[in-house]
Amino acid sequence: MCGIVGYAGGKRAVSVLLDTLSGLEYRGYDSAGVSVFDGDGIVTVKAKGRLQNLADRLKAEHPGLAGGCGIGHTRWATHGEPSDVNAHPHATEKLSLVHNGIIENYQQLRSRLLGEGYDFLSRTDTEVAAKLIDSLYHGDPIAAISEAQAILEGSYAFAILFADRPGEVYATRLGSPLIAAAGEGETFIASDVPAILPYSRRYALIGEKQIVRIDREGISLFEPDGSPAKLQMLTAEWSVEQAQKGGYDHFMLKEIYEQPRALADTVHPRISDGLPSFEAQDDIPEGFWRQFDTISIVACGTAMHAGMIGKNLIERLARIPVECDIASEFRYRDPILGKHSLVLLISQSGETADTLAALRLARERGATTLAVVNVTGSSIAREADYVIRTFAGPEIAVASTKAYSVQLSVMYLIAIRLALANRAVDDARARELTSGLLGAIETTKDVLGLNVEIKEYIKRYESLRDLFFLGRGLDYALSMEGSLKLKEISYIHCEAYAAGELKHGTISLVTEGVPVVAVATQETLLPKMVSNIKEVHSRGADVLLVCKQGLEVDPEIYSKRLDLPALDDLFMPVVGVIVLQLLAYHTAVLRGCDVDKPRNLAKSVTVE
Amino acid sequence: MCGIVGYAGGKRAVSVLLDTLSGLEYRGYDSAGVSVFDGDGIVTVKAKGRLQNLADRLKAEHPGLAGGCGIGHTRWATHGEPSDVNAHPHATEKLSLVHNGIIENYQQLRSRLLGEGYDFLSRTDTEVAAKLIDSLYHGDPIAAISEAQAILEGSYAFAILFADRPGEVYATRLGSPLIAAAGEGETFIASDVPAILPYSRRYALIGEKQIVRIDREGISLFEPDGSPAKLQMLTAEWSVEQAQKGGYDHFMLKEIYEQPRALADTVHPRISDGLPSFEAQDDIPEGFWRQFDTISIVACGTAMHAGMIGKNLIERLARIPVECDIASEFRYRDPILGKHSLVLLISQSGETADTLAALRLARERGATTLAVVNVTGSSIAREADYVIRTFAGPEIAVASTKAYSVQLSVMYLIAIRLALANRAVDDARARELTSGLLGAIETTKDVLGLNVEIKEYIKRYESLRDLFFLGRGLDYALSMEGSLKLKEISYIHCEAYAAGELKHGTISLVTEGVPVVAVATQETLLPKMVSNIKEVHSRGADVLLVCKQGLEVDPEIYSKRLDLPALDDLFMPVVGVIVLQLLAYHTAVLRGCDVDKPRNLAKSVTVE
Repeated sequence: MCGIVGYAGGKRAVSVLLDTLSGLEYRGYDSAGVSVFDGDGIVTVKAKGRLQNLADRLKAEHPGLAGGCGIGHTRWATHGEPSDVNAHPHATEKLSLVHNGIIENYQQLRSRLLGEGYDFLSRTDTEVAAKLIDSLYHGDPIAAISEAQAILEGSYAFAILFADRPGEVYATRLGSPLIAAAGEGETFIASDVPAILPYSRRYALIGEKQIVRIDREGISLFEPDGSPAKLQMLTAEWSVEQAQKGGYDHFMLKEIYEQPRALADTVHPRISDGLPSFEAQDDIPEGFWRQFDTISIVACGTAMHAGMIGKNLIERLARIPVECDIASEFRYRDPILGKHSLVLLISQSGETADTLAALRLARERGATTLAVVNVTGSSIAREADYVIRTFAGPEIAVASTKAYSVQLSVMYLIAIRLALANRAVDDARARELTSGLLGAIETTKDVLGLNVEIKEYIKRYESLRDLFFLGRGLDYALSMEGSLKLKEISYIHCEAYAAGELKHGTISLVTEGVPVVAVATQETLLPKMVSNIKEVHSRGADVLLVCKQGLEVDPEIYSKRLDLPALDDLFMPVVGVIVLQLLAYHTAVLRGCDVDKPRNLAKSVTVE
Repeated sequence: MCGIVGYAGGKRAVSVLLDTLSGLEYRGYDSAGVSVFDGDGIVTVKAKGRLQNLADRLKAEHPGLAGGCGIGHTRWATHGEPSDVNAHPHATEKLSLVHNGIIENYQQLRSRLLGEGYDFLSRTDTEVAAKLIDSLYHGDPIAAISEAQAILEGSYAFAILFADRPGEVYATRLGSPLIAAAGEGETFIASDVPAILPYSRRYALIGEKQIVRIDREGISLFEPDGSPAKLQMLTAEWSVEQAQKGGYDHFMLKEIYEQPRALADTVHPRISDGLPSFEAQDDIPEGFWRQFDTISIVACGTAMHAGMIGKNLIERLARIPVECDIASEFRYRDPILGKHSLVLLISQSGETADTLAALRLARERGATTLAVVNVTGSSIAREADYVIRTFAGPEIAVASTKAYSVQLSVMYLIAIRLALANRAVDDARARELTSGLLGAIETTKDVLGLNVEIKEYIKRYESLRDLFFLGRGLDYALSMEGSLKLKEISYIHCEAYAAGELKHGTISLVTEGVPVVAVATQETLLPKMVSNIKEVHSRGADVLLVCKQGLEVDPEIYSKRLDLPALDDLFMPVVGVIVLQLLAYHTAVLRGCDVDKPRNLAKSVTVE
């Protein structure tokens, strides 16, 4: 969840480190720190909170800090509260180290190192790692790192400066992501590609336990045993401009507005002769889709909500049983998988630790794995048997919007393709469905037109503490996503319920004035949904109805109605989610929240 | 969700109606009302709120209301807010009527009746039903009711007085429960058996659309077409005493303490030669358990949480894939079922409307249905292919406790039996598991000993607004139940999370002092769980740790630890739930909530 960077080159290291860290701040912002070689050794500066605090401290306390080599860190706290002392880098006399990940056996190692005479200043697992490597270092960095790897349990990406090796940065990884990049007379390491885009588009992925050394001359890669490894340079396909705000107040709003394009980019290359096909774009032959008895969809957070809709679509259209699981639960429940099982993993970053672990388990069990990811070359993309890339472009806001939408669009494509392969629908129906999806994507532009109306309506949510979302069927899955979005950026305690389930307990929280967002886009479920809206309305709820144009609902039971285009029920989530995203966005802005970087969260969750 | 009663006999009808309604108040308490024949016709009295309001109004405004025949109603609002005018009975010149259920086509009927010159005072579907029957009544009650049945859509149990038929109560039902009972020179109708227990233990179930007439002489039953039907009298097995508080402050606390006995009563008759068997008690042959490829567990609310644990146990022990569904969602998602599918329905009352509808759908689709219910003769018990009765005794508190525990115990028995039948475990292991379950039940008594410690600790929750439960695996399912329990009776907005999932969004709500109940009884998941606890602790959460005796957890990361008996991980839910129930109970008492009758809720949810 943290972000790490390293630099070796001709520029002032402090400036480059701060700049590249700013590209990683979405990975955590509880604290930040840098270590830089200057003439006399390593200088380390850290500060609690946002990166700006660190920049201010550097300016005030170390205005003359020069030197062209250093490491930096932005932290999402796992062990120990966010504070200066717990911030990275952690330094000893011999070295300074930054860490992304969790060392699981740090308690034992701490005892052992205490026995060897080490003292500890912080409560972090990282300080333990730093002192362990210190204890193993006798002049050969590669050997020390290699020995430490044999002892450490858990996940990590480290970047390390050794005091007697000025101008060099060493790094390694297990479980956590790490890249190295090369510019003109300068080299970088970073947790991911966007951080280094302003400097270079040429980068290499570091393999599990491989060790990398960078200096002004270039990048050297080693296998875990210290032998030289082959370095394979790739070229980044995203431009710097794609990662800028482009006139919007926030990345989140920009990304909401990018959805019509992102959906078209993702879906169009996978339509062939009016039907979904993954053959040309993703190298998945049509025969692939005929081999599965059961499907497990595994993901976390927003991606899991796309998976919930995927389950509904696949079961409904292809009549194959689908389970949709939270990745952190899937791993530990000893899932029933076999060679006719397809495990479908969804992750924007392709680095989500729980999802990656689920992928590995599924492969061990002999299931076929198919990943839907947005980032090429990510761990999940590399390890899955098959990959479908979504083309959302870089998503910077922590709260996912366009990445969700493109994941959703892939669920439709997969469901239609599976239905066709399993003869659950005929060719004509599959074409009709495909054109329905394309039509739905067309109308997403119109839904953005509700922006002002939503912004106006949610003024009543300014000092809100609780809110409920209700929906049935596809609207329930959609409500889950609407609720998560609002919760993560506005800090309102909201919760989504299957509309028929509320009366089995939670309705006791619905009293006069409690706002309820009723998502009622499913024509076939409307009478039952209206009964459920009446249950809350009759208890005083302030109902916002998100509905489909043309559906008749008694106007006395809601305060406000937002109409979506009148698509087939099946495609309503494609347009419905945009309303819920705008609702969350404007509510958070109104309440003065930091929309793009909500407290406690990180964009890419690379710890379990 | 509402409760209806009717009386014809020698006693003062008002007293009997109030008394029997008090036995049904758990079905709703938004308003109450009675209609009674006195010398000059029908007198109707209604009042918003609890039954006591109606009793007060009767005493103040109608002290001399005599007459030995009438009907009564206690309401859980579906259409129209709780108010005097929306309260039942609804009277016309010709009749007075009470209703439990929802008329779905009431809008059309209302327009039609407006066209025929009827006026409407209320916003309820029930007034529409009353006026419809009024319009069809020309002196033959059975004919009018029968004609109305052909027109009405939805669900109902009606009790009706016709002004020109003094001394007689007519009643009918579709979808909603209804019984008739006979005493000495008096007869009753009621929504369920406990209401009439103080007067009689002899009752009959009324079939769908059957019409019943009661008077001092007895009960007459008719088929929907008006021809006579055979009346089959049953004898209630519960005594009045079982439905009393017996010295406890609340039914809920009494029912929590009854769990060791309820568990033993439910499990012991199903152990034969050290193994679970449903042959003698439930007439389910051992061969039954060998025929299923897939299992769907379908339930609502608390029962669904027992089902979630059932899914985990069955998959883990028997290696048969299980889906666990919310009943209101299951029905409408076109589930994939076949003749090798077992659909397992769980309901305390056996009358839960959504679960009943799911049962009917499953039967239509050719699946085998097995119901786990607490009430003999209930609709679900009657319509399922096979039934396992739980022996919790009558549960009066709206928030379910002992009914959950016995449902849970049946999940263990089923999982072990299925595992044995499918050779996923051998005989020795099955015996070991069975004795593990019996041992767990034994230790539930010890867990009740934590009562005072819990009561003391939760004082800090007095003015709380939000709380989170965390757990992994079985602890997650248990957390869901703990959260629902606390929410429904204390009105605290709490929510349960799979511990690994919190960081994917909701952790943004965890700030300094936010209480988190961390359920960490699973030894195998402890290291990961501890990492998740640290994530919230490092953000300031006030952690209550519910743990297993002997597990080592760093005391710095929690404020309080409650230790459960050190059972095998598999059986920890049996004891864990008791702590969560006591937590909810004491929190609600501390906050002055009406523990046994939380606002807006009803015990038995007989509407969708």
